[in-house]
Parts: sequence; C-alpha cells; structure tokens
Amino acid sequence: MVKFSQQAAYLESSAIRNKAFDNPDIIKFSAGRPETAFFPLADITTLLQNVLAEHGGKVLQYAASEGLYPLREIIAEKCLPGCGVSLKPQNMMIVSGSQEGIEFSARLLVNAGDVIICENPSYSGAFGAFAPYRPAYVTVPMDEDGMRMDALERILQTTPQAKMIYTIPDFQNPTGITMSLERRERLARLAAQYEVPVIEDRPYGDLIFEGKPLPAVKSFDKDGWVVMLGSFSKILCPGLRLAWLCAPDKFMGKYVQIKESASLQSSTLDQYIAWDYLRKYDLQAHIDQLIAGYRARRDTVLRCIAEYFPAGVKYTRPAGGFFIWVELNPEIDTAALLQKSLEIAKVAYVPGAAFFVNDKPGNFLRLSYSCVDEAQIETGLKRLGDLLKASVA
Amino acid sequence: MVKFSQQAAYLESSAIRNKAFDNPDIIKFSAGRPETAFFPLADITTLLQNVLAEHGGKVLQYAASEGLYPLREIIAEKCLPGCGVSLKPQNMMIVSGSQEGIEFSARLLVNAGDVIICENPSYSGAFGAFAPYRPAYVTVPMDEDGMRMDALERILQTTPQAKMIYTIPDFQNPTGITMSLERRERLARLAAQYEVPVIEDRPYGDLIFEGKPLPAVKSFDKDGWVVMLGSFSKILCPGLRLAWLCAPDKFMGKYVQIKESASLQSSTLDQYIAWDYLRKYDLQAHIDQLIAGYRARRDTVLRCIAEYFPAGVKYTRPAGGFFIWVELNPEIDTAALLQKSLEIAKVAYVPGAAFFVNDKPGNFLRLSYSCVDEAQIETGLKRLGDLLKASVA
Repeated sequence: MVKFSQQAAYLESSAIRNKAFDNPDIIKFSAGRPETAFFPLADITTLLQNVLAEHGGKVLQYAASEGLYPLREIIAEKCLPGCGVSLKPQNMMIVSGSQEGIEFSARLLVNAGDVIICENPSYSGAFGAFAPYRPAYVTVPMDEDGMRMDALERILQTTPQAKMIYTIPDFQNPTGITMSLERRERLARLAAQYEVPVIEDRPYGDLIFEGKPLPAVKSFDKDGWVVMLGSFSKILCPGLRLAWLCAPDKFMGKYVQIKESASLQSSTLDQYIAWDYLRKYDLQAHIDQLIAGYRARRDTVLRCIAEYFPAGVKYTRPAGGFFIWVELNPEIDTAALLQKSLEIAKVAYVPGAAFFVNDKPGNFLRLSYSCVDEAQIETGLKRLGDLLKASVA
Repeated sequence: MVKFSQQAAYLESSAIRNKAFDNPDIIKFSAGRPETAFFPLADITTLLQNVLAEHGGKVLQYAASEGLYPLREIIAEKCLPGCGVSLKPQNMMIVSGSQEGIEFSARLLVNAGDVIICENPSYSGAFGAFAPYRPAYVTVPMDEDGMRMDALERILQTTPQAKMIYTIPDFQNPTGITMSLERRERLARLAAQYEVPVIEDRPYGDLIFEGKPLPAVKSFDKDGWVVMLGSFSKILCPGLRLAWLCAPDKFMGKYVQIKESASLQSSTLDQYIAWDYLRKYDLQAHIDQLIAGYRARRDTVLRCIAEYFPAGVKYTRPAGGFFIWVELNPEIDTAALLQKSLEIAKVAYVPGAAFFVNDKPGNFLRLSYSCVDEAQIETGLKRLGDLLKASVA
C-alpha cells in the first residue's frame, strides 16, 4: 500500500474542473473561462510569426526564475497604474497563473493549524491550493461593499494564529461583490498594524463595466504587507499561463526561492509573447472591447434571471468580472440539483458549497457568463429557470 | 516581523542559478543548459507560424490539468518506446518541467522526518524541491554501474520511514554515471518488494553517445511502484517548460489533484507546439544531431582535462548527457576556489558541495559541457587547469 504524505490526504478535486461539464451539449455557466472568441487572435498570430526572428533562440532557452526583466518592467508600466500601483520590477515575479501565486503564498506562510482569514464564500481553487497546508479558516462577513472591516479588526485582535488575509476585492469570485475604496485603504492599514500579510487576488479588476477600476489594496500598502496577484488570464488569454506576483522586499527573496524549487521558471516563450503583446499592441483598447462583450452578457443574464427564475430568488448584480451568485430557497440543494440540471436542462453551474469553508450552505450556485454567448444564455437560463421552478414547487 | 511558515525556513537558493555566473565574459561550465544553437529554430518557427491557424483559439484557452490528450498520446508513441516503456495517456500527466514533477512527488509522499533514499551526490535542484518537506536522507553508495543494489536492499530492510527512492539512472547529474541494466531491473523489484516508490528522473536518457538508450527502470515496473519523469528540456528546448510524469494508477489521481491545486495546468500554447513538433518532425533525427554535437564537446572536455589539469585529478567519463564530475586533491575547497575561478580564470563551474546531502566534501566540482563550444572549452579548461595547478602547488 502506498504511504502518502499527510498533506496528500487533504488534496481536493476542483469543483470547477468537473469532467461532467465537458460534454459539448451542455451550456456552461460553470467555467470561469474567458471567451475564446474574444482573444486577439490576429495580433497573437502576428506575434507568434515573428517572435523567433525577432528575439532568437533565447525564446526557447531557460530564463530567470523571477521572470523576464523587460516583461516585468512593461507590466509595471502598463498594467499597474490602472489600479494605482507603482513598483519596480524587482518587486514582481512572473508566475504560471495566479493559482501558482496563491499556492506559493500558502507555502510561504501557512502551517497546520494556522489561520487564513478570508471572505466566505471565496474562490474554491484557492481553498484547493491552501488545503494541503491544513489551515483553519476564520471568515469575515461581507456586505455589498465587500469584506467588513469592523469584523476583520475584531478577528485580527483575537486571532494571533492569523497568517494570511486572502481577498478578491474586485467582482469577487464567486459573488461578484466589489470592496469599497474606503475599505481597501483600511484593509492595508489593518494588515500593517497586525502584521498579517494580505494576499490580494486581482484577476478581474480591469474588467469593470461602469467607470474606472478602483485602486488596489496594494496601492495603499505603505508598510509592505500586501502581496498582489495580477493575471493575463482574463484580460489576454489563460493558455499562456502568466500572472504577476507583486510583493514587498521582505517577501520577495523567499517567493523566488519557492519558484526555483517548484518549477524553475514560467514558460520563456509565453513570456516573450506577452512582452511583445504589451510593446506592440494596445492592451487597454483590447480590454475595452472585452468589457463591452462581457457587459452585454452580464446584462443578458440579469434580464433572464428576472424573467425565467422563480420569484424570490436572490442574486448579485456585479459591476464587472465574470460571476453572479444566486441564492435559492433554503430547501434546495444545488449539488443534488446539478445532476438534474446536466441531464434535463443541459446546463452546468457550480454548486455554491464548493466556495464555502467551514459551514457550507447548500442553496447557492455560481453562474459564470464569461464563455456563454447571449443566445446560449437565453436558452440555458430559461431551461435552468424551469428546473428551479419545478424544484421549488 | 513576518511570520513565515516552518517550510519557508528550509528554502534554498539554487547553486546552479547563481547570479555571479550571468557575466557574459565568464565561460560557463556551470549551467546544465542545452545549447541554444542546437535548437531546431527553423522547424519551431514554422510551427509557431501555423499553430493558431491550424488549431484556433483553443491554443490560448484553459485546457485539462493532465495535459493535452493528443500530446500525451504522441509522447507515449514516440518518446517512450526508446526506453522500453509502454503505457497509456491515462498514466501520463504533463508538468512544467521535471522540476515540477520532482516537487509534486515530494508533496505526495514526504513529511518531516520521512526518509528519501538517493544517490549522493545527486541533482541539487531535487534537494531544493525536497527541502521544504524536511526529509532525512539515506544515501546509497555508487560505483561505475550506478547505485549499488546490495546497499539499497540493506537500507530498505532497516528504514521503515523510507518514502521515496530518487534516482537519475542515465548520465547522472552531477556524476555522469549510468546505472547498469541488471540494477535497473533489480531496483524495480526492490521498490515493489518494499513498497517504496521510485522517482526515476530521466532528462538525459536519450542523449547517449555510444549505442542505444538503456531501458528505463520504469520498463521493469510490473507492480506499479515506479514514477518516471521524461522531459523536452534537453532533447527539444527548455523554454517551453514541458515534461511528462508517468505514474501507476494508484498515484495518478493524486498527482492530478496536486497539479490542479499548484498551477491548474501547463501552458496550452507550449503543449500544442510540442504536439505539432512530434507530429510533423522527426524527433529522433534531431536527437541524433544533438548527440553528435554534445559528444564532440564531451570529447573535447576529456582531452582538455587530460592535457591541462594537474596530474592525479580524478574525473568521470560519461557515455551521454551533460556532466563530468571532477575530484580534486582533498585539501582543495572548490567553493572557495570558485571566486578565484570567476575572477582570474573567468570560468564558472558548480562546486560539488551543492550536490551532496549529509556530509558535503569540498573537493569536487561539476563541469557541464552542454552550452560551451569547443573553442571555449579549450580556452576555459586551460585557464581552469592553470588555476588548479597553482592551487595544488
């Protein structure tokens, strides 16, 4: 019999990467996947055609564990000012998607019994990355302005085992809720005061449907307690597996050691493609197009929920990002309902329980509208609405 | 003050990725890096030009955590028969370089105080990946036929805490030693008998200068106790960050969970490029060219050592791969000598101590000839030889 490690017993399978969703007949409100049709295919085709002629064989060679210096430089120049963050390439490391940065953060900070403070619900993939480190969770209540800072401060006062505050301040996964400006500033202050690092996960922050992005929590980080994760996955494409981890000096050296030991470095080719994209094309113009596309889908989802779902269903109205969070009648178990939804309605969603730690209420579900076009949204949500009505009755 | 995790205290910086080696005036016998000039640039340029037209936007989209099915299929078809391994894509997972597979294996199997059995010296990057899991090491003596199986069996009999046998059977890093056929078979049997998994790290196995590759330990794995890591890094290029982890059923599910939680998946673009390369070009013909190039470099190194190094220096004569292991006079400390070597001889090597666990003798060094051309070898080893002669005197 294989003697696995203790941490191996805590591994979880992703509720989002459920193989049952792979059937092409299923309309997928389950995946937090960007729309393939929105990728800048022509531009990336041009980049791919020229990348070797332009840079030579080093595109295929080993490169620095921290990531390509000019890529970090241009991210600092083009991707950070929008959220009010100003920092040097020395305080950035390229990682293979935010997922890797989340996992590295747990490795850096968390042992069995340590406390991670987080929103509840929150990103299930982060819980999956944290699980092998066996944290306890203390969760902070949210309202329409995100994590409540009065509650967070009480927790910090009474939780000396707290090692990390994990938050998704923009269009949170799964709720779509955005943290207010005032709370962002206060969060940075509390982190410094109680010396508990914040891991700010910011994959959706630029996909804002009205107005401008809010300054990141990181932008208020005077004392070096905020680690921010930004990503190309939702604003360019996820197949390149590139994100950036922004960390204060006192964390950076150890993050680089973790990267070296975990995977040496992220794909050199992918990094050159991203660098060339940022040099040669207008990322913000592309993001503006994405915003128009995803906003139209959000609008359609909100209209269809109002039209087809049973009266009394509660749901969030996100101002950006990919997700709407639906609260059903407490008697409904969305995990049990998923089987019917896949078979009868031919619709996939992610049952809400996957996004909770500690208590896991069964009557929530996450709808993602990012990779479903308007016609599919209409068809799918009508069918799901019919199923929900039948389940309530 | 930041409260790091326990494992963070055990992180190490790579002795190979030493920034002092980056100076372009230094002749680098330090890096286990393949030669950039040997990459199939024209072929990969063609692939990059066509990959989006041929496969569409899914090249830039999320993909399965296990890796692209057709890539795993074609690796099984084209890369495994050479080392006598036959298996299904279901028993393979794509990882972002063997480094990731090594790290995942420690995560899967090792807790503080558990024992890893390994060659000594061995790959320092593996020790770096293992370090945060805080193993104890029990090392197996080697001779010219690799790890000694009589010694291994005695260790297995008396070490119930043994959780993993880590080995590089082909042209071992750092020694260049190759394990004999008979010992490979016996290693697979011992692993099954004592139920201790073997992690067989095989990055260099196809780069054999005389004759054909030996069957992998994995080829003798009747009972499912051998995990093999193969890699594109040395036979195609390392910038794509692609390796394959071959594991028995009883390990596979957990490896996939680890991959999901650690980084979701490896680069989709990189995987399509590798798949297209294997479909459209003749990898073995390319490897044959690599062999000719690296063999010429090995021959030059051996000649220059004989010619320029002090009499009495011992060194290995590898039959493949990238490395020669040099044993100097016991009074010489190669770590202290490195500073002089960089300043005076303008030559980089890796001091041997980085490759040892437990006792770390100071009088060894690793010479890599993979990314140094013949003229540089001649110049560099003459200079290093002069320095060594001066140090001995």
